Amino acid sequence: MNKFWGSRFEGKSDELADAFSFSISYDHRLAEADCLAGIAHARMLGSSRVIAKEDAQRIVAGLNVLLKKIKEGKFDFDPHAEDIHTNIQTALKKEIGASADKLHAGRSRNDLIATDMKLYWLTARQEIQAHIEKLQRAIVKLAQEHIDTVIPAYTHLQAAQVVSLGHFLLAYVEMLERDKQRLDNAARLADVMPLGSAALSGTSLPVNRNAMAKELGFKHISANSIDAVSDRDFLLEGANALAIMAVHFSRMAEDLIIWASSEFNFIDIDWGLCTGSSIMPHKKNPDILELIRGKAAGLIANAQELLILMKGLPLTYNRDLQLDKPPFFASIDNTIVILQLLAKTFETLKVKSATLEKRIQDESFFTVDIMEYLIKKGVAYREAHDTVGRMVKDCLDKGKKISSLSREELKNYAEAFDIDVKKLLNPHTSVKIKKSFGGTSPSSVKYQLKKWSRELNA
Amino acid sequence: MNKFWGSRFEGKSDELADAFSFSISYDHRLAEADCLAGIAHARMLGSSRVIAKEDAQRIVAGLNVLLKKIKEGKFDFDPHAEDIHTNIQTALKKEIGASADKLHAGRSRNDLIATDMKLYWLTARQEIQAHIEKLQRAIVKLAQEHIDTVIPAYTHLQAAQVVSLGHFLLAYVEMLERDKQRLDNAARLADVMPLGSAALSGTSLPVNRNAMAKELGFKHISANSIDAVSDRDFLLEGANALAIMAVHFSRMAEDLIIWASSEFNFIDIDWGLCTGSSIMPHKKNPDILELIRGKAAGLIANAQELLILMKGLPLTYNRDLQLDKPPFFASIDNTIVILQLLAKTFETLKVKSATLEKRIQDESFFTVDIMEYLIKKGVAYREAHDTVGRMVKDCLDKGKKISSLSREELKNYAEAFDIDVKKLLNPHTSVKIKKSFGGTSPSSVKYQLKKWSRELNA
Amino acid sequence: MNKFWGSRFEGKSDELADAFSFSISYDHRLAEADCLAGIAHARMLGSSRVIAKEDAQRIVAGLNVLLKKIKEGKFDFDPHAEDIHTNIQTALKKEIGASADKLHAGRSRNDLIATDMKLYWLTARQEIQAHIEKLQRAIVKLAQEHIDTVIPAYTHLQAAQVVSLGHFLLAYVEMLERDKQRLDNAARLADVMPLGSAALSGTSLPVNRNAMAKELGFKHISANSIDAVSDRDFLLEGANALAIMAVHFSRMAEDLIIWASSEFNFIDIDWGLCTGSSIMPHKKNPDILELIRGKAAGLIANAQELLILMKGLPLTYNRDLQLDKPPFFASIDNTIVILQLLAKTFETLKVKSATLEKRIQDESFFTVDIMEYLIKKGVAYREAHDTVGRMVKDCLDKGKKISSLSREELKNYAEAFDIDVKKLLNPHTSVKIKKSFGGTSPSSVKYQLKKWSRELNA
Amino acid sequence: MNKFWGSRFEGKSDELADAFSFSISYDHRLAEADCLAGIAHARMLGSSRVIAKEDAQRIVAGLNVLLKKIKEGKFDFDPHAEDIHTNIQTALKKEIGASADKLHAGRSRNDLIATDMKLYWLTARQEIQAHIEKLQRAIVKLAQEHIDTVIPAYTHLQAAQVVSLGHFLLAYVEMLERDKQRLDNAARLADVMPLGSAALSGTSLPVNRNAMAKELGFKHISANSIDAVSDRDFLLEGANALAIMAVHFSRMAEDLIIWASSEFNFIDIDWGLCTGSSIMPHKKNPDILELIRGKAAGLIANAQELLILMKGLPLTYNRDLQLDKPPFFASIDNTIVILQLLAKTFETLKVKSATLEKRIQDESFFTVDIMEYLIKKGVAYREAHDTVGRMVKDCLDKGKKISSLSREELKNYAEAFDIDVKKLLNPHTSVKIKKSFGGTSPSSVKYQLKKWSRELNA
Repeated sequence: MNKFWGSRFEGKSDELADAFSFSISYDHRLAEADCLAGIAHARMLGSSRVIAKEDAQRIVAGLNVLLKKIKEGKFDFDPHAEDIHTNIQTALKKEIGASADKLHAGRSRNDLIATDMKLYWLTARQEIQAHIEKLQRAIVKLAQEHIDTVIPAYTHLQAAQVVSLGHFLLAYVEMLERDKQRLDNAARLADVMPLGSAALSGTSLPVNRNAMAKELGFKHISANSIDAVSDRDFLLEGANALAIMAVHFSRMAEDLIIWASSEFNFIDIDWGLCTGSSIMPHKKNPDILELIRGKAAGLIANAQELLILMKGLPLTYNRDLQLDKPPFFASIDNTIVILQLLAKTFETLKVKSATLEKRIQDESFFTVDIMEYLIKKGVAYREAHDTVGRMVKDCLDKGKKISSLSREELKNYAEAFDIDVKKLLNPHTSVKIKKSFGGTSPSSVKYQLKKWSRELNA
Repeated sequence: MNKFWGSRFEGKSDELADAFSFSISYDHRLAEADCLAGIAHARMLGSSRVIAKEDAQRIVAGLNVLLKKIKEGKFDFDPHAEDIHTNIQTALKKEIGASADKLHAGRSRNDLIATDMKLYWLTARQEIQAHIEKLQRAIVKLAQEHIDTVIPAYTHLQAAQVVSLGHFLLAYVEMLERDKQRLDNAARLADVMPLGSAALSGTSLPVNRNAMAKELGFKHISANSIDAVSDRDFLLEGANALAIMAVHFSRMAEDLIIWASSEFNFIDIDWGLCTGSSIMPHKKNPDILELIRGKAAGLIANAQELLILMKGLPLTYNRDLQLDKPPFFASIDNTIVILQLLAKTFETLKVKSATLEKRIQDESFFTVDIMEYLIKKGVAYREAHDTVGRMVKDCLDKGKKISSLSREELKNYAEAFDIDVKKLLNPHTSVKIKKSFGGTSPSSVKYQLKKWSRELNA
Repeated sequence: MNKFWGSRFEGKSDELADAFSFSISYDHRLAEADCLAGIAHARMLGSSRVIAKEDAQRIVAGLNVLLKKIKEGKFDFDPHAEDIHTNIQTALKKEIGASADKLHAGRSRNDLIATDMKLYWLTARQEIQAHIEKLQRAIVKLAQEHIDTVIPAYTHLQAAQVVSLGHFLLAYVEMLERDKQRLDNAARLADVMPLGSAALSGTSLPVNRNAMAKELGFKHISANSIDAVSDRDFLLEGANALAIMAVHFSRMAEDLIIWASSEFNFIDIDWGLCTGSSIMPHKKNPDILELIRGKAAGLIANAQELLILMKGLPLTYNRDLQLDKPPFFASIDNTIVILQLLAKTFETLKVKSATLEKRIQDESFFTVDIMEYLIKKGVAYREAHDTVGRMVKDCLDKGKKISSLSREELKNYAEAFDIDVKKLLNPHTSVKIKKSFGGTSPSSVKYQLKKWSRELNA
Repeated sequence: MNKFWGSRFEGKSDELADAFSFSISYDHRLAEADCLAGIAHARMLGSSRVIAKEDAQRIVAGLNVLLKKIKEGKFDFDPHAEDIHTNIQTALKKEIGASADKLHAGRSRNDLIATDMKLYWLTARQEIQAHIEKLQRAIVKLAQEHIDTVIPAYTHLQAAQVVSLGHFLLAYVEMLERDKQRLDNAARLADVMPLGSAALSGTSLPVNRNAMAKELGFKHISANSIDAVSDRDFLLEGANALAIMAVHFSRMAEDLIIWASSEFNFIDIDWGLCTGSSIMPHKKNPDILELIRGKAAGLIANAQELLILMKGLPLTYNRDLQLDKPPFFASIDNTIVILQLLAKTFETLKVKSATLEKRIQDESFFTVDIMEYLIKKGVAYREAHDTVGRMVKDCLDKGKKISSLSREELKNYAEAFDIDVKKLLNPHTSVKIKKSFGGTSPSSVKYQLKKWSRELNA
């Protein structure tokens, strides 16, 4: 077994203990980050004369060779070398010989792993944001086609009012936009380089931390070495941003699953995202969406796991911190796949306009419109509300439609009524008149779509 | 029972169901926000001629009366009126009569509750931030007194190196600073007014949402009515920011609990924050710190609860959303109390300098310094590391101290050694030489303290 | 401020610290348990001659007076006395004078609180189980009325097969039965008395723990004093049993919410359990069910909170343990209310048999039946499955119904088909033929109902 | 791609969707269970004449061939075959040809996967229980060696009283015993076979479910087909039992980590379970114990994830259920490794008796003993408590030891004192006199050890 601190200890290490404690099976994905951190560190050590210029150059060259291999998938990770640092260190020694032994001056695995993780996360979040934008574009495209498609919208899963499907879809775009901004915020707080904090106290070697930060693209360097090696806030915050996003995914999935039921029958999901049943050949199950909804449980639990992991740990580094990686990486991976699958879902979604058009004729969708009609005529909200309530109840009780009421009957409910109120008993009208900013009228939706097209280059 | 939608329904409501569903026992704290939202809304309705100017004025005046009562603690909440909206609406009606019935035009409880919660949270987070700063100041003050106090710092709960206690304490200040910034970030995303989105679709009434936002102090107005009433991101993000902060609290508590044990014996915690034992009269237990550590479990669970609550809910409003309040309010309340108690803890903390001074003499604290001594003399990191390792092990095996080694014995370990290496066997030297930015040297610590004093006016 | 350990400490306690640490606001509900534990303890101390018989008698009498007051709601809890033990101790002193000072011999708050909590929980779980049975009875009653009502059952929210509504409802009864048994299991493990473990090490006084256990109704006494005061397993397990139950509640709620949507339209929920909308007078929202679904988030988080609280605490008692109470009590209270509300829900549920009867005519519900028809005639499963699949697809493509296929057309799909297969195209037949044990046939359902009636005296 | 329901669908499936939805990468470990379920099912189908005897025999023989391969690790899992059922079905077809097509009659993947998971879990829990017993034996052995070793025990991390180390260790054995019993309880509730419930409604084929249950070793068969395919209680309960166990592990780890600090210095942990530091060659870090503590976060989160996953799902099967496996399997795997590593920890633990003997001389450990001395002489608890409190405080203030007090000075505190009270100022006496059942006296500990030796064959 190859361990960083190998040579000094009596007895041999325990195989089971090694299997339990080695992290290379998951931290291998930090390989690029570890090389980049090493390159910046070596260059700085050379400039600061901590090590000879030639050694620094050899290390940089060697790490660049490794970096290339890693990018090309040709780097052989050694499962018996405990972690990514040991893997890179050992490979570097093989590549360039003795100079490799000089790399670790003035740093420790404590500040190095924090740096690697931040480099990894700051890149990953950009990838995630790019996928968010692709999904937003797919939704915007579908929304554009359905500005004038009218669907029922629900509160309490009870049909409430009709809205433009385009408008409904843009709600998802808004949610995703916050997710993107939340990642920006998280990144801003994470953009602080721990490297140069060494084990916990800083170092007596003349390290130039600003130079390293510049090379690695960090905006700030940490101001307290103890905090720098103890801190995992950036993972707690990142994992939670992904958990919130997963809640968004789960809500989108739930909407679509409900819409795809034969009872709602609003949409048709592409077969590529569905499966059938082994015993009921007629079924078309929205499995991918169900799995997306289910995965949200995992992303929530991952965020939770990191908080639990950190709770009550004394400063500074404790080995528990190693376990920050599996849940965090899992959240990243799942997020990226789900974003792609949701994009496909919206790209291939078929809207059943004909059945929808039938569904939205129900007069009860227009009660708010009637109430606002009365308010515009000077009736107080409370009275207007109660009037419409009484009218609807009467109609239900007597099996009548509002559109069948005579002018007189209308007047019996409220003097302010006139026959023109019946013009409101139309779903497309109902949508058209909601002209408040952010409302569902086609003009509002078009305005928003224009903004999104511009912002997303969609 | 007094319900907003009361008059229209057959049968009477169920008492147990009412007890289960009424929210006034916890949403009463939104009273001020609900009045403010009402005032802005009424004024706007008046300006937009949706209601008469006089009605608007009467409503505004009435709500201002209620607001004053609320602030003075003189408002009588009615536990039989289901929620805060009903309480305010009913009280307003009593106060001003019929005009009150006109207030609710063009809004719904769906957009109103979201607006109330945002107003509440945006204020609460400022209060929290003020308390964070007070705690930071208390810590900075203590740090200033202990720039030159040297303590062992631990990794894996194993004494690792010595550091300035002032430096250690500033790690807490850094953690809290991120907490403060995280709240800023959360607030920026939350600063979007939902009011005017009505039930879910917007309204046909000519509402001026920008005017209301301006009056309420919101920077933005929501761009999609469906999203606006469905969204609780600001609570998920806020609760998580508080959970991360609670993890910080728990880590500080853990450090202090360990330091206060008779085995570590670094500090003395004020009796006002401790309790004794009913059966062991000599005990002095750090109860408040234990409770702070324990409360972190609650704050983590609260953040979790909100994510679970939202997962898989279809858009738009579902009644489940009502349950966002108890965990969120509990997190806010606990955070504020804990911040105050931690400030007291640091204000009254006694550091046992004498016992500390004895503890830090252990030579093993200085091995990194010796290693860096060798590196400065051109020895490769790996070799320097192994050399010091061998030397330490020998000394332990033979019961010798490094300071007792002769020049010759030293040279046997590494040619680069000279007798001046022994100057490093001093805790105060060890601290002094860690001059890297963010390191533990008194000069670094003073630099950081100056920055904090400036920023915190401490 | 009145504290158990009061007299010994310098300085005065901090008001904020007291407010943060006092538990009487929630542990007051342990009042009865604390008295009972005191009575058993005092009697034993008297019998064992640790205290005088007369003192023991006085204590027992005094505690019985308190007990009576508590039961009648006449006990005045003192919010300035930190916890329930202090409240009872102080009240006892007032009641009987000096003898009260003898009660606490050989016990500590550490073993006492564990005993109180177990007594409380072992009683509460019985109450919960009684409410479970009431709910089961309500469901069984509804099931009895709907043995022959046929509804579609869903997988993936896609209509799959038809089943007896009675059968569907009995699935809930099964779930609840496991919940009941899980509480039995939890109680069996909790039925171990900690009292007599004192602070952590046992006592040198001649305590008779078996006598106390017998009086308090505990089956076992703890065998290790350190474990006895450190252990909170019974709460972790209890809270999780309630969380699983809450998941059951949430699933029932979800079924009913979906069934109550106008798109599904299977049932009508009583108005007493619904609310209307302030802006849409026609809405009937299943609020209580939504809140039940939402509360599941809280019960899950409570179970989680207790696990987080305990993680990583060293043995033995730590003050963190005090915080086990609020989440645990909340879970118990919510469980009991929800059980009652669900019972009301099922007692008042109206099934819309006419719309259901229309819905279940869809031939695709019977494909499994057709497949099994073929299997009975010797066709291999795979072939039968593919045959039916092809037939269904053809019919869908050509807009045909299976019932319209001629004998010849049928034979074209499979030689084994004969015209009698069309008898299967009937929902009531489909239900009737599923005679496997636990299947949906009316005979199966009746068999199960008989069992439940017997077991529940329903 | 090879899917169970493959042939019937238009379009081809999506590669990313397949990668996201295929479960074979984790459900492959159900291979044995799936074969066993298949064998029992085929035999029953043969006996019930649903399929020909010869087909049944061929299927059984074929599955036995597969079973052997699986056990020997020679079965080639096909990552492109979506799940374990498809893998086994396809392999069976290859092995025996057409008869394989008859296996799936009267069952569905819905009842099959539930059956597979239960078979897997009921076996895994036995393996876990065996490992618990091994760990218990290792602890009992160490306890036997340390009946007379005296250590301080802590409440609030403040040294409270001295106890036998053997006694302390037996607290762990008690905790583990409850874990074992909790698994028994969980298993009892899980011991109900779903097979024969088909997709959700049961089957019209003449299946003999009791015969299958007998062959598979299930005690009961499910009584409701809808519940049988919807239920995952056994996983929720199992995962929580493992989470509680993980909390136990974390507490043991925390005790040992604290004891291994140089400040406490009670024990020495084997190097095989520790690691060193790359920059501090003198460090010996208890990494395995820290990782065990950290893993508890994962096990808690896994239990949580399953509850979140299930919350709010309508009956019956939803694809979300597939995601029950990764967290559940992870919890099982980690539990087994941790149990082994803890056994190693205790097997190799060195107790530092000499330093302990010095530590336990502190007179404040004996205050409870002195108090009980007074109580035995008839002093009331409260008075005895206050007396000892005053005496201890005086001694601390004056820098005196209790053992230095004269008879007169003692009498000044309490008339009941006599010079023999000083005999109590001895740690070994302090332990010896705690003779209450379950207390720390060597006689008590020996009694418990005898019981454990018998029960564990240790």
